[in-house]
Amino acid sequence: MHINITGFAQTKFGEHYNKSLQDLILEATKDLDLSNLDQIFVGNMLAISTQGQGHLNSLVAETLQTNIPIFSIESACASGGFAVHLATQALKSSDAKKVLVIGAEKMTDQPSCQINKLLMQAGSEQERQAGLSFIEAYAFMAKEYADQFGLSKSDLNQISIQMHANACSNPKAQFPRAITQEQIDQAPLIAEPFTMYDCSPITDGAAAIILEAEKAPGIEIQQTAIATDAPAFYSRPVTHHIPATQIAAKKLDFNPRDIDVAELHDCFTFTLIMALEDIGFAPQGQAAKNFSSLKTAINPSGGLKACGHPVGATGVKQVAEIAKQLADNPSYKTGITHNVGGTGGSCFMSLITKS
Amino acid sequence: MHINITGFAQTKFGEHYNKSLQDLILEATKDLDLSNLDQIFVGNMLAISTQGQGHLNSLVAETLQTNIPIFSIESACASGGFAVHLATQALKSSDAKKVLVIGAEKMTDQPSCQINKLLMQAGSEQERQAGLSFIEAYAFMAKEYADQFGLSKSDLNQISIQMHANACSNPKAQFPRAITQEQIDQAPLIAEPFTMYDCSPITDGAAAIILEAEKAPGIEIQQTAIATDAPAFYSRPVTHHIPATQIAAKKLDFNPRDIDVAELHDCFTFTLIMALEDIGFAPQGQAAKNFSSLKTAINPSGGLKACGHPVGATGVKQVAEIAKQLADNPSYKTGITHNVGGTGGSCFMSLITKS
Repeated sequence: MHINITGFAQTKFGEHYNKSLQDLILEATKDLDLSNLDQIFVGNMLAISTQGQGHLNSLVAETLQTNIPIFSIESACASGGFAVHLATQALKSSDAKKVLVIGAEKMTDQPSCQINKLLMQAGSEQERQAGLSFIEAYAFMAKEYADQFGLSKSDLNQISIQMHANACSNPKAQFPRAITQEQIDQAPLIAEPFTMYDCSPITDGAAAIILEAEKAPGIEIQQTAIATDAPAFYSRPVTHHIPATQIAAKKLDFNPRDIDVAELHDCFTFTLIMALEDIGFAPQGQAAKNFSSLKTAINPSGGLKACGHPVGATGVKQVAEIAKQLADNPSYKTGITHNVGGTGGSCFMSLITKS
Repeated sequence: MHINITGFAQTKFGEHYNKSLQDLILEATKDLDLSNLDQIFVGNMLAISTQGQGHLNSLVAETLQTNIPIFSIESACASGGFAVHLATQALKSSDAKKVLVIGAEKMTDQPSCQINKLLMQAGSEQERQAGLSFIEAYAFMAKEYADQFGLSKSDLNQISIQMHANACSNPKAQFPRAITQEQIDQAPLIAEPFTMYDCSPITDGAAAIILEAEKAPGIEIQQTAIATDAPAFYSRPVTHHIPATQIAAKKLDFNPRDIDVAELHDCFTFTLIMALEDIGFAPQGQAAKNFSSLKTAINPSGGLKACGHPVGATGVKQVAEIAKQLADNPSYKTGITHNVGGTGGSCFMSLITKS
């Protein structure tokens, strides 16, 4: 059996003050063939806390006018990826032949201080009590990494510059514009060593994919892998790497040298450094140095940094983006996605191939 | 392949002011064999809104000291049932041979007015804006039913009296005590026709089951079924029945006459009337009349009404209770569970047998 990605779409990522979560879901699914769906999986993190709307599976039943089984999955910023994983299990179980996976999030209606607080729902109670934000948590990791391996501001800047360059050719990106060294130099400090351009933005958006169990190969999800870990990043032996990524990457059977294109979780520029090393694209301490010479196309969408990061949608958008890249580029045969929840409390990865 | 329930447990349901959600999860799982688990499924509705704790899968990774795939599922009061369904799909997919399903909820730390508001996260935005509570929604349904088929207060009272009688033999029940007609007569009116004893309580608690894919039959989940519907109850053609239950019941291949024991969703006494008719235990309009002569043992746990209703835990507890009933009663061969989300926006059912 092959798990083929037979449809993929996303809304433009950005500020959609005039659209509801239902509007975004309708927009992401309007061009997909929704006939004969057996099940639907929805990834979302914040609807219950920003809009007081739980029971999202029921909301989707209303939105798409159906009574089929619908499942609402939450795993912080990896909610979308976890929904994809469960969708593949539904197909493998033979309970379903065709499923829809939706990732959707509305974030920009809230002030950023409130969103930063709500995102910490993915962290530990102690982190919340200490008033820690995700930006500070990842900045702390970056500093520990810098102490261990060295890390300059230009190591980070090359990533944001590249992500924005990539986004220029993605009409769905939130920030499809190049940034200059001068802009970076003038960007306000957020949490040392991160300035504004090291941080992914607050974003509204939705993405959707159709997965079908088929006899013939196509653009298909070959494998998925999931790992979990404690929410508190400081509870880990070292904080400059993410064990959940390392475990998930080890479960997938692939060689980084064979990967043509990857969508990796870059909620901060430094997060991409960790991802490259944890997945095996670069030896420990070498990702920044090797970044510009990597053979694999990293984050052609612009990544979380420049395409945007509507948290529950990101994991689905990454799979949709790799499907699109494989469809559009004759030379691409193999891609991966990598989606992290919180500061590493959960991780989803997928290996996607084209026959 | 058989999906055997090889372990089942629950905490005492009730007021656990001195226990955290993690404590309840540990307590529900402490006597289960957690070795060689492949995946874990967690049903919960309110942690994100009462405790600001999302990313529950990560919290469970910490609680149970593991890095395996863990999934957090929300479907309002049917969160536990939906988690069970996905767990069976994991086993059928061969991605897992042994899984743990946990349902857990902490509710009593909040004032009841706040909990009633938060439970409406399962409803529609319009229902929230109108200030509707679940009690009022179900009371409205009861009134429409009464107009159509007739429904006296004693029709409802027989159910609460029976649920409390059942709970007397369940040491895990929140209210293991009989109630008298006098107590019922003196109970305060909540929303006509419901007085206090028509309503399930606010409850803390957790339940857990182990499911294993095995060659030999045992106490096993034969089938599960799920249906979804729009969250707003008033959007349905008639409001005195729950379409999602009817659809789920139709998907299951069973005859009500063959069911020895059932755990049905009785968040209100009237909800049980609807369930009995929607599932097929009684013809439309006849459930109250037939209730006392039903061959099937209904809610031996005491049901949501007297065992308690920690919303995300209920669907798992129902499966655990049926497994226990089949294990303890030589004459019982077949049981079902029935778990409703919101006012019928989602429904999970399971058919459980003993060889």
